[in-house]
Amino acid sequence: MKLRGKTVLEYYVGQPTTVHLMLRPRHHAQQAIVEETFHIDPPVAFSEYTDHHGNHCQRLILPTGHITVTSQVEAIVTSHHTPDVPFPQFVLIENLPNEVLHYLLPSRYCQSDLGEIYQLAIDIVEPLINGYEQVEAIRSWINTHISYEYNTTNSSTTALDTVHQRMGVCRDFTHLAIALCRALCMPARMTVGYSDKLKYVDLHAWFEVYLTDGWHTFDAVQAQTEGCRVVLGHGRDAADVAMANQFGNAELRYMQVKTELIDEDL
Amino acid sequence: MKLRGKTVLEYYVGQPTTVHLMLRPRHHAQQAIVEETFHIDPPVAFSEYTDHHGNHCQRLILPTGHITVTSQVEAIVTSHHTPDVPFPQFVLIENLPNEVLHYLLPSRYCQSDLGEIYQLAIDIVEPLINGYEQVEAIRSWINTHISYEYNTTNSSTTALDTVHQRMGVCRDFTHLAIALCRALCMPARMTVGYSDKLKYVDLHAWFEVYLTDGWHTFDAVQAQTEGCRVVLGHGRDAADVAMANQFGNAELRYMQVKTELIDEDL
Amino acid sequence: MKLRGKTVLEYYVGQPTTVHLMLRPRHHAQQAIVEETFHIDPPVAFSEYTDHHGNHCQRLILPTGHITVTSQVEAIVTSHHTPDVPFPQFVLIENLPNEVLHYLLPSRYCQSDLGEIYQLAIDIVEPLINGYEQVEAIRSWINTHISYEYNTTNSSTTALDTVHQRMGVCRDFTHLAIALCRALCMPARMTVGYSDKLKYVDLHAWFEVYLTDGWHTFDAVQAQTEGCRVVLGHGRDAADVAMANQFGNAELRYMQVKTELIDEDL
Amino acid sequence: MKLRGKTVLEYYVGQPTTVHLMLRPRHHAQQAIVEETFHIDPPVAFSEYTDHHGNHCQRLILPTGHITVTSQVEAIVTSHHTPDVPFPQFVLIENLPNEVLHYLLPSRYCQSDLGEIYQLAIDIVEPLINGYEQVEAIRSWINTHISYEYNTTNSSTTALDTVHQRMGVCRDFTHLAIALCRALCMPARMTVGYSDKLKYVDLHAWFEVYLTDGWHTFDAVQAQTEGCRVVLGHGRDAADVAMANQFGNAELRYMQVKTELIDEDL
Repeated sequence: MKLRGKTVLEYYVGQPTTVHLMLRPRHHAQQAIVEETFHIDPPVAFSEYTDHHGNHCQRLILPTGHITVTSQVEAIVTSHHTPDVPFPQFVLIENLPNEVLHYLLPSRYCQSDLGEIYQLAIDIVEPLINGYEQVEAIRSWINTHISYEYNTTNSSTTALDTVHQRMGVCRDFTHLAIALCRALCMPARMTVGYSDKLKYVDLHAWFEVYLTDGWHTFDAVQAQTEGCRVVLGHGRDAADVAMANQFGNAELRYMQVKTELIDEDL
Repeated sequence: MKLRGKTVLEYYVGQPTTVHLMLRPRHHAQQAIVEETFHIDPPVAFSEYTDHHGNHCQRLILPTGHITVTSQVEAIVTSHHTPDVPFPQFVLIENLPNEVLHYLLPSRYCQSDLGEIYQLAIDIVEPLINGYEQVEAIRSWINTHISYEYNTTNSSTTALDTVHQRMGVCRDFTHLAIALCRALCMPARMTVGYSDKLKYVDLHAWFEVYLTDGWHTFDAVQAQTEGCRVVLGHGRDAADVAMANQFGNAELRYMQVKTELIDEDL
Repeated sequence: MKLRGKTVLEYYVGQPTTVHLMLRPRHHAQQAIVEETFHIDPPVAFSEYTDHHGNHCQRLILPTGHITVTSQVEAIVTSHHTPDVPFPQFVLIENLPNEVLHYLLPSRYCQSDLGEIYQLAIDIVEPLINGYEQVEAIRSWINTHISYEYNTTNSSTTALDTVHQRMGVCRDFTHLAIALCRALCMPARMTVGYSDKLKYVDLHAWFEVYLTDGWHTFDAVQAQTEGCRVVLGHGRDAADVAMANQFGNAELRYMQVKTELIDEDL
Repeated sequence: MKLRGKTVLEYYVGQPTTVHLMLRPRHHAQQAIVEETFHIDPPVAFSEYTDHHGNHCQRLILPTGHITVTSQVEAIVTSHHTPDVPFPQFVLIENLPNEVLHYLLPSRYCQSDLGEIYQLAIDIVEPLINGYEQVEAIRSWINTHISYEYNTTNSSTTALDTVHQRMGVCRDFTHLAIALCRALCMPARMTVGYSDKLKYVDLHAWFEVYLTDGWHTFDAVQAQTEGCRVVLGHGRDAADVAMANQFGNAELRYMQVKTELIDEDL
């Protein structure tokens, strides 16, 4: 399938402001990037680097005035969400590859080390023993018990907060899912990008869990994980994959995200 | 100076338990490792890898029974805590190297994104403008306002908790220092290892801040940062640099840490 | 300046053939990539990865028949070839960063360990002592003493061969320059990409040398290093930065490269 | 098994000389390093780093006079040379992991891109089709057709030279094996370290080939690959894994290597 994703950010900048963006697609195995544009209007030079998760990041200083950043991508993607049959299993800690171990650790918004998170995870998955089914139970529980509501959470909201408040947006759903999976010793990470089957179109966040055969995609916002996805970045949680970190007072006046399936047969 | 550090862990293991250790010294520029032993008694095979911070990690399965892990290091080290004169400055975000940027982000135990942390940081450093002096003010404030007391905190205690409780151990002092520095846009990380000038001998935790000329060492537990240090690991916070992560119920019955300055003239 | 580069490869493929391409721009500090397309006609899925030099590589299997690969990039670039004044110096080995040390080593096509190469380097640079002037003398000597002639060398031609044959193309000029610089203990690497001031338009190869303040660009094919450049990849020599490695008998029937300066003022 | 390896280098240094050493063991999955010493007498500070192959390297400046470097290691190792049954197969290029692809490329001393090397490889392996058997045929051919003779080759000798001269030492045997394997599209690398079953005790070089299930150990110097090994480093060829690179005229007056199997049952 061929998917197009587009993000437009319109800033009003009172004084020059350093920003770090993560608005370009990853170049990796499951998505072939065929077209990619990244325009700043008026034009501003920027530099790029690859972080330790392999995400592509942009560094720039926004000059004063009205600035528009437009990033677009077209990618041929393999559907991520069809599990192999039989369902992938839990991977014993001793068999996990070195490089996924840090996805077992608690992180800023995913306090998997807390007893309350662990207990909730146990309550949700019992008596299931298959890894994939456990994750699916977690995903489904969140989808059912947490209500999707804008403006009820903010950028400091954690998985524990969401356990208590039972509402939030894709970021919060995802943080909770990750915390619950890690509490059960399953490496889990946050993924952000474009997805075509969303009720609320936005830069979306979902999660991936390491089970047999590698990382598997799950989306707690959807009734079932479905649709075509282009990944911009992944990391431990939202701290690692912010679309924009700014160091100053640029005002984001408008943001638009579009996702379009442009060829189903590719 | 030549320093010797030694850690002994004695476990009683009821059933085979996977553990990940970080008990060997880093091999990098400021410490020349001349001797290093790592014995498990009775002998157990283990494998090693280097994590994305460059720390050396050991993976093994503890068999049932009594198990002793002994790790010892001798290193020729350059003293870390003498600042150059004039004092190193704050580095503008746009001039920070790519690889230190993630040390600006909030992490599990260092919630630098919270308003309460930011306000405390501002209150402490005003009206200082030099980066080194600001960090030194933060370090000194913590040393004065937080009391060092065992068994008042646990492995889930965060920087924000410490702001409220005003007590803790080296780990808590360090988390708070890091959170305050990051809130002011100074990259900060946690370092663990051996230090020879401690009232309480233990595997120690201190912090480093990125200012002009690179990473600078600070220790909030000491009245002044002093002594000779051997680094085992560094990372965003304690989640990244745990001495031991275990996945099961091995019981740590005894732990001993020794640090000895064996040659002052080297 | 804003530069556009485009490469078209037309293959006739008798049986499915694995190819590894390096046809996309690097994303790093000195070039801001604003537009990038990579089309295969008829469409073929491909995967991508970043090699240990940070280059972006594409892996795919060419199906049988006529296949066209078109890669295009538009980038805002900073001119690479203006040396700072005073000229950058030789960096003492002990002051070189760890990550550039392997660019001192001999490689497949750059036998900097041979006495004949070393002697030639000495003959060329004496009695100059400034690093930049030495490299410039090497570059100029090659430009003067080696004649640019197509079809006189092949993909196995080495720097030593070029010393003897005194003819070749940009790849050969560059290999010789690198071998001579390394023989004098200056880290040197091969860079491939687009350049707008070439007599012969092609995917171009030039070289970079590590002197004070970092990597500096030199081009032995030009009378003087000039023009605007977009970098696709860099590495030890042509073995590391092949535009295409194929494992089978796909026939490259046509290749076209275009470089265009589309905005001089950006 | 537990193996002890020791290397002593005695230098006479006329004027301060920068050296880069690779004399410490790798810390990875198949060898558990239990003891490790690295002494310079008289004491000299050194710094360390990990290269892009994961090898541990030491950087130092040898002061004038007599200097002795002594490096010793004790490791619990898993035997490397027992192939699984059935024999591991050739891995299709499209199934090779990204990170082993560069071991397919020709390198300074392993000119796998030359027709003469390819033809020899074909002559040796025909009509075998199993990957492991092909590598074993190459290893055995070299062991039979190349005679082990000191002082017949030097640090510039290549695989092609060895095809013609038919003599050399472990380094030359290994380079030829690697070139032949790569010519057949099997990723191959050079490994250096200690081995306990050698006629000629020295820092030894052997080779590894990527077949199903990962890297497999082969030794062209032995009649059959046997014995216990501790790995110091691996890389494309001898350029990547030199025990010592010096930039000046320190004179190596004496070198001693000892390998001892100290516990067969571990």
